[in-house]
Amino acid sequence: MRIVVLAGGIGGARFLRGLKDALHNRADQADSQPEITVIGNTGDDITLFGLRVCPDLDTVMYTLGGGINEEQGWGRADETFTVREELIAYGMQPQWFGLGDRDVATHIVRSQMLAAGYPLSAVTEALCDRWRPGVRLLPMTDDQVETHVLVEDGSGRRAIHFQEWWVRYRAQTPAQAFVSVGADSAEPAPGVLAAVEEADLVLLPPSNPVVSVGSILGVPGIREAVAAKTVVGVSPIIGGAPVRGMADACLSAIGVETSARAVAEHYGPELLDGWLVDDTDADAAVDGVTVRAMPLYMSDPERTEAIARAAVDLAVELGGRS
Amino acid sequence: MRIVVLAGGIGGARFLRGLKDALHNRADQADSQPEITVIGNTGDDITLFGLRVCPDLDTVMYTLGGGINEEQGWGRADETFTVREELIAYGMQPQWFGLGDRDVATHIVRSQMLAAGYPLSAVTEALCDRWRPGVRLLPMTDDQVETHVLVEDGSGRRAIHFQEWWVRYRAQTPAQAFVSVGADSAEPAPGVLAAVEEADLVLLPPSNPVVSVGSILGVPGIREAVAAKTVVGVSPIIGGAPVRGMADACLSAIGVETSARAVAEHYGPELLDGWLVDDTDADAAVDGVTVRAMPLYMSDPERTEAIARAAVDLAVELGGRS
Repeated sequence: MRIVVLAGGIGGARFLRGLKDALHNRADQADSQPEITVIGNTGDDITLFGLRVCPDLDTVMYTLGGGINEEQGWGRADETFTVREELIAYGMQPQWFGLGDRDVATHIVRSQMLAAGYPLSAVTEALCDRWRPGVRLLPMTDDQVETHVLVEDGSGRRAIHFQEWWVRYRAQTPAQAFVSVGADSAEPAPGVLAAVEEADLVLLPPSNPVVSVGSILGVPGIREAVAAKTVVGVSPIIGGAPVRGMADACLSAIGVETSARAVAEHYGPELLDGWLVDDTDADAAVDGVTVRAMPLYMSDPERTEAIARAAVDLAVELGGRS
Repeated sequence: MRIVVLAGGIGGARFLRGLKDALHNRADQADSQPEITVIGNTGDDITLFGLRVCPDLDTVMYTLGGGINEEQGWGRADETFTVREELIAYGMQPQWFGLGDRDVATHIVRSQMLAAGYPLSAVTEALCDRWRPGVRLLPMTDDQVETHVLVEDGSGRRAIHFQEWWVRYRAQTPAQAFVSVGADSAEPAPGVLAAVEEADLVLLPPSNPVVSVGSILGVPGIREAVAAKTVVGVSPIIGGAPVRGMADACLSAIGVETSARAVAEHYGPELLDGWLVDDTDADAAVDGVTVRAMPLYMSDPERTEAIARAAVDLAVELGGRS
């Protein structure tokens, strides 16, 4: 079985861990090793202190490779912050992004390889040589695509990098719009379209539908390729609130209600075949989409595995539809 | 009194600390604050992991600014090595240069400023805003000058960066020659020639006469400007051996005996007016150079201050000669 997953950061990475467990435990699949290709969001990427930082790719890589800070959900376990402390002592800006020392090393390796002319996809593969995440991790594109946020506050109306809005302002400054700078002319990274075309099913984890999954689908060619497949998504909204993170601030900026149903309608039946919602949202009905309810909090590995298994099962069940 | 010091790393930095103490304690200078301008060696500079590292400038800055690892003589106090550990886990080369986390932050700031177009002299000034070394620290040049070493071993005859020879091979692979790559077309950094011209005296600390002081003097224009001044040097050789480091390996490569007398003759009477040697070398006589003997080990702050004071006193005494 070949599965493609469009993943953001924390939610995507946790879902992927559950998916690996679920596939590993599917006894009936023992004769053929399932293959998971992850198309990672790079719209959150940012250059800080001359280092190229890819938060979502790294969260997936660290989580599946056993290096993640489990409590926090992002960043490295046993992290130290000596470099950051020193950069602050030098008065370096920005100070709102907390780069850890272990993380800095990843960004140094990446930046060195990029400077040497390797595309991000090759760099990501090289980093994964160490982490062995057990999936094929591809950036959505090798081109630079960065999500900027149009905000208006005391300083006037301006566009800031998504990370500044998310990390510095905790998404508290209302977003008027998201602009995916560079998306128009971006191309899917090598292997992305082929992986989707060869996939038996595509899963959308409970990642941010606007700035994570939305950014991936915004790379020309990816949405069309995905829409041609059997696609099952997991709602990132439970009972009118994001499971984690500040997806509500993103949804309201694009005029989408913060509800499991509204997110499914935003993806639309052209893209989505099945939609997993929490029991709380069991009454959500979406035209043209098969909705199934179950406990949807990824509160522990077993629960997460059950969610992933349900997503795969639903996709297999709907396999004839796309 | 205006003093210019041509400094390498550890020996130069320790001498400078003694010099600051000596000048601070010269009661007769109380009416005019002495000014020390340090012309730092940048021939040891190297780009590692995309970061520009200036070992000698940093050793001076950290030592005078209170951030040095006192036992080691270079690098930061309370240093950690998380980034290095991670770079090794990624298999990054080279692994023979032990960049500490605090040090990495300095190189990030420097590299960022260089990438933004600031010359090294402006970068050094900005870094010193934090460290306040109490001297004016100038790189010998804003141009890239790197000392390479011609060696011959099992891998054949080849040129390697000075740091590789010094740190990786501990100067154990015989050097056939030193090549100061870029020196021919380098220009003294802004302020260097003016500082020398306005100086009342120039001091050569017990730094490596070949790859530290020699590199500085190798920047076109500096040797001539210095030679026009009253110059007193402190021998880096005591009783036929380097006080510290591996200067003997450098001296033998250029055909100079490892002795206090031979080093003075290498500098030559055109450059040197006075020469401080250890009591062990009291019999050293150099044509055209005034030699004075005293205990020359910089074993503690008081001894170091005494050496620096003796160098200043000798230069003042010889003041009419240049």
